[in-house]
Amino acid sequence: MVKLEDIQNAYKRIEDFIHHTPVFTNSHINRLAGAEIYFKCENLQKTGSFKIRGASNAVFMLPETEAARGVITHSSGNHGAALAQAARWRGIKAYVVMPRNAPEIKKKAARHYGAEIVFSEATLESREAVSQKLIDEKGLSLVHPYDNPNVIAGQGTVLLEFQRAVPDIEMVVVPAGGGGILSGTAVYAREALDNVRVFGAEPRLADDAYQSFKTGIRQPQRPPVTVADGLRTALSDRTFNIIRRYVEDILLTEDEEIISAMRMAWERMKLIIEPSSIAPLAAILKNKERFAGKKVGVIITGGNVDLDQLPWLETSSPG
Amino acid sequence: MVKLEDIQNAYKRIEDFIHHTPVFTNSHINRLAGAEIYFKCENLQKTGSFKIRGASNAVFMLPETEAARGVITHSSGNHGAALAQAARWRGIKAYVVMPRNAPEIKKKAARHYGAEIVFSEATLESREAVSQKLIDEKGLSLVHPYDNPNVIAGQGTVLLEFQRAVPDIEMVVVPAGGGGILSGTAVYAREALDNVRVFGAEPRLADDAYQSFKTGIRQPQRPPVTVADGLRTALSDRTFNIIRRYVEDILLTEDEEIISAMRMAWERMKLIIEPSSIAPLAAILKNKERFAGKKVGVIITGGNVDLDQLPWLETSSPG
Repeated sequence: MVKLEDIQNAYKRIEDFIHHTPVFTNSHINRLAGAEIYFKCENLQKTGSFKIRGASNAVFMLPETEAARGVITHSSGNHGAALAQAARWRGIKAYVVMPRNAPEIKKKAARHYGAEIVFSEATLESREAVSQKLIDEKGLSLVHPYDNPNVIAGQGTVLLEFQRAVPDIEMVVVPAGGGGILSGTAVYAREALDNVRVFGAEPRLADDAYQSFKTGIRQPQRPPVTVADGLRTALSDRTFNIIRRYVEDILLTEDEEIISAMRMAWERMKLIIEPSSIAPLAAILKNKERFAGKKVGVIITGGNVDLDQLPWLETSSPG
Repeated sequence: MVKLEDIQNAYKRIEDFIHHTPVFTNSHINRLAGAEIYFKCENLQKTGSFKIRGASNAVFMLPETEAARGVITHSSGNHGAALAQAARWRGIKAYVVMPRNAPEIKKKAARHYGAEIVFSEATLESREAVSQKLIDEKGLSLVHPYDNPNVIAGQGTVLLEFQRAVPDIEMVVVPAGGGGILSGTAVYAREALDNVRVFGAEPRLADDAYQSFKTGIRQPQRPPVTVADGLRTALSDRTFNIIRRYVEDILLTEDEEIISAMRMAWERMKLIIEPSSIAPLAAILKNKERFAGKKVGVIITGGNVDLDQLPWLETSSPG
């Protein structure tokens, strides 16, 4: 189980490497929501998402001999880029396994941060097999994107920093994907802050966290098709065990609500926010009565968007 | 002539109304440029651009009886929205004259900030005639977008604030449109700061400022077709007289360079920046030798972009 001091120690480890991201408000959105919303902008974080916090905490905690052999992940999104950057800070090698047919933009990002890309077939089985082979051959350490206590502790540092900037925050809404940032946030809120309630926000088209939370039994992800590509993963036992105990509720949103809130946030806030990161705002606007008059924190988790593929442009060119 | 104390007094007048916008840096862009670039993000300013500074200073300075009759402009872009917001703060009426066929997004923005829109034909003559008729009838005060000393003094407050955040800045690069922000910046640099050199950046397809600067005689705008729609205006005598004396140089950029720098800034900085605002970065990347190793300030003037019409999407849908 991740504890408060794990998050505090994680922050000491990483705080000189990461950006202390700004918190923004927007009067138009406040009027619309009937609440005071504070946006913690991890889209402005190094590598474009909060994932660098967990990845660097996990990489920095590896014993010297293990670290020297290198790290690996088969998560090709924000965690892959973050792991590559964290490994570069430590001066070690990072491998990212991705399908040969992965979007060019993901290959470019992983290479930009210094990862060595290893190709697999498109199935999860192939990605896992290719990873395992490299782990066996080279003694690499696998750094899972969320099913790892050191990663969760790193993600919990977002709320630590957020609460320093906005001490009287009453509620926090966080996207629910694999549950790393949601469980890290929930631990910090429960153990360090009085009366700060944590909500998850999830697309209905990838509602495993909601179904797990409501039934009390961890549910597998149905084939997920949501526009919020960062939220297509399912909870692990580790993240679910934290979330079921410490999270107040999981709120569902429709994809159209996510796209419309995303466009509004781009227009009003002038910030590039990825679809997964906007589920919390969409959930607040859909459930105004639960947030009315409150000081609500929203973690904008990332800003990595394919600018050739904006979801409101039906005729946008193929990437 | 605008003086230092006009800018200092403007700041006292407006500082409680505006955002004190953040300054960001980006390590990728610094490596690319070979310089230390600081971005003052007026795209995150109220109404989405620096124009609120000049408009509110001018509106707040109007004598009570004049103010009570209302204000007018026939600038339908960022200045129109800014004037509407400034008038709302003072509790007076704002009229914005725009052609009947103006883009819906501009009508929507002006209305959002509380302006009354008055339609004209598409020609400048018609816009001026419609404005003059209202001025005669209602005794409105015309607030010009840049040919107005109180507006210029307001725009000069960007550098005042910028320099407080980055005291050792050596150069500042500013877009050259009508010359309001460029001349306000140049006055402040010359009168308040030692050794801070000010550059203008302008699209070659709308190069009246460059031609005026090089020939010493104010040149009219050729029919401008640049993607940087905020820079299609020409200098006035007032702004040219400041610019010719206090600005170090005007640097030209191609539209393709603007589009490519804009896309890079969106991808790397996660900020929505309008094409006009990116001309300075494009100019720095084109003239690296002039900025090498320096601490360079860039004023990101605005973030009002039609998200249906991104310049790198050839097939984007009609707005």
